[in-house]
Amino acid sequence: MKKHKVIFQPSGRRGEVEEGKTLLEAAQALGVDIEGLCGNKKVCGKCKVRIEEGYFEKDNIDSGMAHLSPLGEDEIKHIKPEDGPGIRLSCSAEVRGDVKVFVPERSRAGKQVVRKAAKELSIALDPAVKKYNIDLEAPTLHDMTTGDYERVLKFLEDDYGLKGLTFDFMVLKYLQDVLRVGEWKATVTVWMDKEIIKVEPGFIDATYGLAVDIGTTTCVGYLTDLTTGKVVNTESMMNPQVPYGEDVMSRITYAMTNDEGLETMHKAIIQGLNEVIEKVVSEIIKDCPTPGFAIDDLTIVFNTAMHHIFLGMNPIYIGRSPFIPAVQNSLDIKARDIGLKINPSAYIHVLPIEAGFVGADNVGVLIAEEQYNQDEMVLVIDIGTNGELLLGNRDRVCSTSCATGPAFEGAQIKFGMRAAPGAIEIVLIDPETKDPKYKVIGKSDWHSDLKKIDAKGICGSAIIDVVAEMFKAGIIDKSGRFAKDLDTPRVRKDSDSRPEYVLAWANETSINTDITITQGDVRALQLAKGALYAGAKLMMKKLGVTKLDRVILAGAFGSHINREASITLGMFPDCPIDMVYAVGNAAGDGARMALLNRDKRIEANEKARWVEFIEIATDPTFEKEFMQAMHIPHMKDKFPHLKELLAKSGSKIEIKG
Amino acid sequence: MKKHKVIFQPSGRRGEVEEGKTLLEAAQALGVDIEGLCGNKKVCGKCKVRIEEGYFEKDNIDSGMAHLSPLGEDEIKHIKPEDGPGIRLSCSAEVRGDVKVFVPERSRAGKQVVRKAAKELSIALDPAVKKYNIDLEAPTLHDMTTGDYERVLKFLEDDYGLKGLTFDFMVLKYLQDVLRVGEWKATVTVWMDKEIIKVEPGFIDATYGLAVDIGTTTCVGYLTDLTTGKVVNTESMMNPQVPYGEDVMSRITYAMTNDEGLETMHKAIIQGLNEVIEKVVSEIIKDCPTPGFAIDDLTIVFNTAMHHIFLGMNPIYIGRSPFIPAVQNSLDIKARDIGLKINPSAYIHVLPIEAGFVGADNVGVLIAEEQYNQDEMVLVIDIGTNGELLLGNRDRVCSTSCATGPAFEGAQIKFGMRAAPGAIEIVLIDPETKDPKYKVIGKSDWHSDLKKIDAKGICGSAIIDVVAEMFKAGIIDKSGRFAKDLDTPRVRKDSDSRPEYVLAWANETSINTDITITQGDVRALQLAKGALYAGAKLMMKKLGVTKLDRVILAGAFGSHINREASITLGMFPDCPIDMVYAVGNAAGDGARMALLNRDKRIEANEKARWVEFIEIATDPTFEKEFMQAMHIPHMKDKFPHLKELLAKSGSKIEIKG
Repeated sequence: MKKHKVIFQPSGRRGEVEEGKTLLEAAQALGVDIEGLCGNKKVCGKCKVRIEEGYFEKDNIDSGMAHLSPLGEDEIKHIKPEDGPGIRLSCSAEVRGDVKVFVPERSRAGKQVVRKAAKELSIALDPAVKKYNIDLEAPTLHDMTTGDYERVLKFLEDDYGLKGLTFDFMVLKYLQDVLRVGEWKATVTVWMDKEIIKVEPGFIDATYGLAVDIGTTTCVGYLTDLTTGKVVNTESMMNPQVPYGEDVMSRITYAMTNDEGLETMHKAIIQGLNEVIEKVVSEIIKDCPTPGFAIDDLTIVFNTAMHHIFLGMNPIYIGRSPFIPAVQNSLDIKARDIGLKINPSAYIHVLPIEAGFVGADNVGVLIAEEQYNQDEMVLVIDIGTNGELLLGNRDRVCSTSCATGPAFEGAQIKFGMRAAPGAIEIVLIDPETKDPKYKVIGKSDWHSDLKKIDAKGICGSAIIDVVAEMFKAGIIDKSGRFAKDLDTPRVRKDSDSRPEYVLAWANETSINTDITITQGDVRALQLAKGALYAGAKLMMKKLGVTKLDRVILAGAFGSHINREASITLGMFPDCPIDMVYAVGNAAGDGARMALLNRDKRIEANEKARWVEFIEIATDPTFEKEFMQAMHIPHMKDKFPHLKELLAKSGSKIEIKG
Repeated sequence: MKKHKVIFQPSGRRGEVEEGKTLLEAAQALGVDIEGLCGNKKVCGKCKVRIEEGYFEKDNIDSGMAHLSPLGEDEIKHIKPEDGPGIRLSCSAEVRGDVKVFVPERSRAGKQVVRKAAKELSIALDPAVKKYNIDLEAPTLHDMTTGDYERVLKFLEDDYGLKGLTFDFMVLKYLQDVLRVGEWKATVTVWMDKEIIKVEPGFIDATYGLAVDIGTTTCVGYLTDLTTGKVVNTESMMNPQVPYGEDVMSRITYAMTNDEGLETMHKAIIQGLNEVIEKVVSEIIKDCPTPGFAIDDLTIVFNTAMHHIFLGMNPIYIGRSPFIPAVQNSLDIKARDIGLKINPSAYIHVLPIEAGFVGADNVGVLIAEEQYNQDEMVLVIDIGTNGELLLGNRDRVCSTSCATGPAFEGAQIKFGMRAAPGAIEIVLIDPETKDPKYKVIGKSDWHSDLKKIDAKGICGSAIIDVVAEMFKAGIIDKSGRFAKDLDTPRVRKDSDSRPEYVLAWANETSINTDITITQGDVRALQLAKGALYAGAKLMMKKLGVTKLDRVILAGAFGSHINREASITLGMFPDCPIDMVYAVGNAAGDGARMALLNRDKRIEANEKARWVEFIEIATDPTFEKEFMQAMHIPHMKDKFPHLKELLAKSGSKIEIKG
């Protein structure tokens, strides 16, 4: 039987599929979630996918027809012009050649479990945007030379002490109508005590802001009530730029090698964020024709490449020496200028960046964790598609970035998947039998206690768990190699004769395939954690630090990370386990703080300039550190006190050699 | 023979036309200029006209077909989709019913003679926009954390002392490319020492600004080199809002009674101004794909209604009591926010207005003539479709507005036309024979000395001349009535049995029709000048002024007005003739001054608030003053010294009574 290569985006899942299988069957075989309400009856039209351009020969792939069965009649009636080019129903299109398929978010089954959930922040409430109620006297012929603009300004000065305000032009356009509709009672929204960015009829209190964290892989928006500081809704999505490159460098390359590359990725993120905006507001404010207009302030963090692409700036200069960014400082940009569908007169506050490799997201972490206000020597690790490190205390803080690859986010892991129902999220392995116990998202019991478990894959944080458990169970050694001659069917050779560990048998899954951890998966994790460890080690050397007082794990799944597993693997240098904290999405926390307190914005600019960027990739000792750090247990060699600590903390981790 | 009513816009020319005549024949008969290069052969397609909607029954008029012959084949091939609906070739479409026709500017014959030409201004050059050359060092790995933004700001602070500048977001987008293209030499354009609105590669000096005067009927743009202060090109056009109403009130009504009325008129003026911008620049800067982008600053004046419509603000509140404008203060609006195709990062500086009836154009006159810096009591009359008056000196200045109608601009005058070739512009009438001598625009000799004169109509300023001459020659009396039993074929009855004076016989014209001055024309002029006179009189009373030290005539044709004729007619109260000055377009001068000197903008805001608006229409004595002022010669009754003055000044005016 002839087989063809099929790749699904944005998950990156790929495999050989028999000719004649539908894309939906291929997706199911590869563990890709595609919605299919009607059960392959070609009726619901929910399983639309887009055949991606540019992967194979351009001429054949434009319509995606060359390597797929022709469009069927049942299919055509579901495909609308607004779907854009290259759309097929995955239950209908049959594989006839190699093909790369993008599964749009709306066709993906199950709602992603938001791992970037918002924690409560402790910060004084002083947002950049505030609302003021005004109650004007109706004008008469006796004061006919005074404009409405001047009446509003006078009231704000007399009653609230606000001087020298200006009006955004767009607000001025409808000012007269609004004042008269509200019978001279109105609510004025003021940005930074400087500019009027909204006037609404009547008295209104509710004020909304959105804190946004654009990750390389995941984007999240926290809708915040600026009068209480509470997050009232959270919405996340895959970064719609993923099809153009799974990491930062490949997106920069995409921008360099495609004439419309920058524009395409820029539009993708703006459009994607607009979808988040609409969703996050419309779940809270019902029946509003333009829900996003309720948002009067927006803060945003991202790495430097995402920052440049979001702003429509060419990212090529941060991709090549001397890696100069367009701008370091924070920016305030009119929402309408960037095309975000919030209040068009509102400003987008873009947090400052540190350097070409360390972006506003790291500044977010910095102002959330405030190492600069502490005496203790703190290492903050922000784990995403890139790993970013901050080390220091009130005297000095250094930052750097390590290319960890997307392993920590589950990408490029054979059965890695996003944190959605069916994803294995907790794993324990019995050192004797080598049998695992695991839990999947959406089910509270261990798999062994459930009749039907329907596992689909492994989510990012569980990769760390499972590799640590494999090590503890003696399945892999400290170099990451699989042990030989283990008496278990779970360790076996894959089709390339490379060893793998079966975490879930096919009958426990919804994808009818054994879910395995391959030698490649273990290597990807070793590379990722080795980069982090070596980066931290070099920073300590530069700062003359020998001992960490605290380690903070932040990132997309920061709050879900198992700190014991992270120590077992050796993700960072020596630190007492009870001084290792998982704080969740600290970059997002920073964006939220800048939303809630305008002084935080000033602090961010000051500290972004103050923090010292350290370039570790060019350090001649990095390679050596990195190679050493690839090994798994640093514990016994380097942390003689760890065993006691682990015992004290009640951990069941056993130290192996 | 059946006749139908045909109206041509924007000229307002109208008349009864025989069935079967083409629109081009109708236009020629009525003195409307339509281009026709091919001589009615239906070949050149230059004579396109648009059949206007909304004048007759909507259903029939949509295509304009109902009252015209059907579309011919020769016609169809010239009409393109981009022409929009209702387009016909005027040489082809035959009249079969009443019809209202709009002649697009491109179909109009002859280029308008710019009557708003720019005079030299004496003002210190300190524009809001300045260019600075910068010469940066190329960045290296040693300063890789500094963004390009920060490098540029540091240079501007170190070398030019410019602190705290911000970048317009749009400039930031291409900053990195520009700096590298220019090999780190660049020219930075800074607005108000505050914001960077352009960065160009290499060293550039030329800086352009545009001063714009939007009149109810005519718009003009003065392209100015901001490094020298000189006007380098001038471009004018009919206000494209004319089809929606010939005066301010009818446009406000159009906005009130049509759902899309405001939007339609707003778009019309923006699009029209963009055409002026493209033309005025491309005649100076050749081969530039987006010529308008060379303009880095723009100042603009207009009356309050045009101001509101230009800004997309609902003008209805200035059309009804208590006539409150949206804003009095000056505004700085990003060009891209209003859709003007100059540098999209540049600001449009909208001069302040005084009140609902007295706009930024009057503020322009005020800051150009600076009554507030003078001891003499000065009356400034700005003559346009509205007449606006300023009276005062350094102690106090009052302003008001009188509805003069468009007579002074030649509209609603039977043979009134714009100042284009063929327009009669100077007239003398022999008191004995009642025969005229006249000159037309484009020909330097008197008509009597030319074999072929080809007169088409009468331009605005000549209306004043001719009525004054008719009065001096005894053709009309002081009440404006035609004298009876004059022994000349030039005074006769028109088809309505109303008297008219033949200024040019059909064989002297290009329109094959006698050009006449009707009783209606005389009345229109009397109403207009009566309003001005009464307004000035009432202002003098309010200020307790009995004597004018100086009268300044400003306006579209201000510099062409014949001051003797204006005194003959009694357009304003008593003033020595040698103290009457014609200054041309003072409103435009004000816009130009604000372009050349930023302190003028502050002055404009201060003085716009300081000047006192006087509402004369509600004054109980206005009606009486107005009725008296309708009469022509105030001179003999009220100005006993005028005869001597006239004699002294060498004038040939004879005082009749």
